[in-house]
Amino acid sequence: MTATTSINLVNSDRLNRSIAQLAEIGKLANGGVSRVAFTPEDLLARQLVQSWMIDAGMTVRIDAAGNIIGTYAGLQEDLGALATGSHIDTVPVAGHFDGVLGVLAGIEVVRVLHENSLRLIHPIEVIVFTDEECSVIGCKAMAGNVIANPEYYRRNDGRAIETCLQQIGGDWVRISTAKRRVGEIAAFVELHVEQGGVLESTGDRIGVVKGIVGQYRFAVTVTGRMNHAGTTPMNMRKDALVAASQIVLAVNKLGNTPGEQVATVGYFAVSPNAVNVVPGKVELKIDLRDLSQTHLDNLVAQMQQQFAEIATATQTEITMTQALHVLPTLAEPKIQSGIAQVCQELELSYSYLPSRAGHDAQEIGRFTDMGMIFVPSFAGLSHSEDEYTSPQQCTEGANVLLQTFLKLDLLYS
Amino acid sequence: MTATTSINLVNSDRLNRSIAQLAEIGKLANGGVSRVAFTPEDLLARQLVQSWMIDAGMTVRIDAAGNIIGTYAGLQEDLGALATGSHIDTVPVAGHFDGVLGVLAGIEVVRVLHENSLRLIHPIEVIVFTDEECSVIGCKAMAGNVIANPEYYRRNDGRAIETCLQQIGGDWVRISTAKRRVGEIAAFVELHVEQGGVLESTGDRIGVVKGIVGQYRFAVTVTGRMNHAGTTPMNMRKDALVAASQIVLAVNKLGNTPGEQVATVGYFAVSPNAVNVVPGKVELKIDLRDLSQTHLDNLVAQMQQQFAEIATATQTEITMTQALHVLPTLAEPKIQSGIAQVCQELELSYSYLPSRAGHDAQEIGRFTDMGMIFVPSFAGLSHSEDEYTSPQQCTEGANVLLQTFLKLDLLYS
Repeated sequence: MTATTSINLVNSDRLNRSIAQLAEIGKLANGGVSRVAFTPEDLLARQLVQSWMIDAGMTVRIDAAGNIIGTYAGLQEDLGALATGSHIDTVPVAGHFDGVLGVLAGIEVVRVLHENSLRLIHPIEVIVFTDEECSVIGCKAMAGNVIANPEYYRRNDGRAIETCLQQIGGDWVRISTAKRRVGEIAAFVELHVEQGGVLESTGDRIGVVKGIVGQYRFAVTVTGRMNHAGTTPMNMRKDALVAASQIVLAVNKLGNTPGEQVATVGYFAVSPNAVNVVPGKVELKIDLRDLSQTHLDNLVAQMQQQFAEIATATQTEITMTQALHVLPTLAEPKIQSGIAQVCQELELSYSYLPSRAGHDAQEIGRFTDMGMIFVPSFAGLSHSEDEYTSPQQCTEGANVLLQTFLKLDLLYS
Repeated sequence: MTATTSINLVNSDRLNRSIAQLAEIGKLANGGVSRVAFTPEDLLARQLVQSWMIDAGMTVRIDAAGNIIGTYAGLQEDLGALATGSHIDTVPVAGHFDGVLGVLAGIEVVRVLHENSLRLIHPIEVIVFTDEECSVIGCKAMAGNVIANPEYYRRNDGRAIETCLQQIGGDWVRISTAKRRVGEIAAFVELHVEQGGVLESTGDRIGVVKGIVGQYRFAVTVTGRMNHAGTTPMNMRKDALVAASQIVLAVNKLGNTPGEQVATVGYFAVSPNAVNVVPGKVELKIDLRDLSQTHLDNLVAQMQQQFAEIATATQTEITMTQALHVLPTLAEPKIQSGIAQVCQELELSYSYLPSRAGHDAQEIGRFTDMGMIFVPSFAGLSHSEDEYTSPQQCTEGANVLLQTFLKLDLLYS
């Protein structure tokens, strides 16, 4: 029999105990966690998670990219899997929830099915993706998007990716075998903490993610003329900082036009940077994100035109070079509406929002249907020891994941 | 007899040979000069200049601040001196003219009188001020404005000011004796290269300096809220860089309001300065200069009001601290009109302009009548190996200095 009508909720205590237990591995004095990929802490955590998967009735395999794939058999083994998961590696100073919630909620969903001797029609996969916080090599390998040059993946500390993968049961030479075949995963749903403050500000319990934004980064150089700040009259200046300030405000204004884009100048360096010298050069970097590639390109075109006008008005030279381009990944509409329906059924308030940070789902969504469920982050904080999502919020997210799987199990049959 | 009606011009060849000869001391491979105060090069140059003073019929003394004072006796020894001079120390990479022209033109004026056996009614002083490019201790000592703590004057390389002064014949313990008594200097006129591009742009041969600008420096801290540039929607940001960019443009706009002020943000540092982080803090420094203290204070008041408005609009905190305040020194009107008259007589086009850089005359003007003569700087360049003023321009400046002295000799009798 299928599970659809017979179970409702995950075991909240068990889920939150697991989260707390995993947070012991790499625990920091400040209450945070440090569990960078391929460190002894990461390896320990991977062992623990695998044991939990096995206890929950899953078979576990490690692919060539080191991804941990726990499979809970379905009633029809020939169907593609309903997959979920996220990552358990962290940035050097992190909290308890980023990535972890998605993995442990997936395991908890299977535990509930397993203890009730229930199976979905589809197999379930719970995936721990390798090194989400740095190289993103795990999900990229599943999408077949790994760069062939191992030097690209060499760690900052000098370690080769070959060694790193070997340590966790992967194999660089066979990395292409990690690519998933079409149909192998019918749909992928990732639960994650929002890492932003939107849900907290709207007061909603659940975020239905519309997609993961695409991203441009540009490096801009403004060249003016360095000059004595005393002896150079205002009308004889080519002040690079004045031009660059206009760029910052233009970028910010574009960010604030109607739409859901964000536009940021985060890096900004002035030369020669002395109080009594009119700046001759400014180098700055722009980060631009939106769900719509068309809208992004439109914004870029507007920036280019405005920068040309600023260059003319300030008698400076402005050059803009693309430094990064990541395509947006839209969430499958039927998964979005499935999640929304579940929220209504569970009487959890929800809102639709884009994910403006990258996630494993962004790569998986390039080859199969993808959806994401967000739960609130306290004060929007993440990548910080102060990251916090309450036990109740974690449980609500896991419940939505469970019910969404039950719904998709029928929808994808 | 007096010299007034009997001589006209300096010896152009001799003046420019002297300038070239002094430029050999501390000569750099790039054609520039490095002759930082209290270095072996500075000491050598001081010896050479003293020998030239003696050859020109002057008696030479070194005061406790190390200033070299060459005196050419006048017909009435009880009158205050007509003084001129500047400095021969340089910034680490300098050209041939900054300071040097003023000293050597002064010596050339005396040479012309001496070889014609002429004397003014007043004694003439040609002064080489100590360390104009760094501590300004020479002219400050003459004005009685030396700070009593020797640590204030310790060199960047760690050398004590006591040792430095001793090397050049000064004496820190007796520094207060360098202060000039009222009436000792009847008037001071400094010839200097403009170090800016105003004369080049107006096409005038001579600048009649209206005064040396006063200067404020302010340190400004803008505190916003550091945040993820992806996950923080535009309307939830407190972007310190956006606020600071508005400050840069407000300062620039005030600089461009009617008046002769200059207003510059030259130093600007962003934290944490990462492409994917909304800036949480910006520290910047403002440099503001004008001849009128009232106008300066008015501009500061406008800045304060505008910064408060920016803080409110951007939800940031903006604090402004005064880091420097130098009072303006106005040139004596009768010296200004004397210089202008001389220009007319010599058929040299001229314009009135402020000096927006500091000079020894700024301190001397605090206790006696002061005037300054500017000659053009090629492309406004200074503090650079590319600093250039042509031999003809140097000669024209020296001729104006000579004739101005002849005029002031009568005016101050």
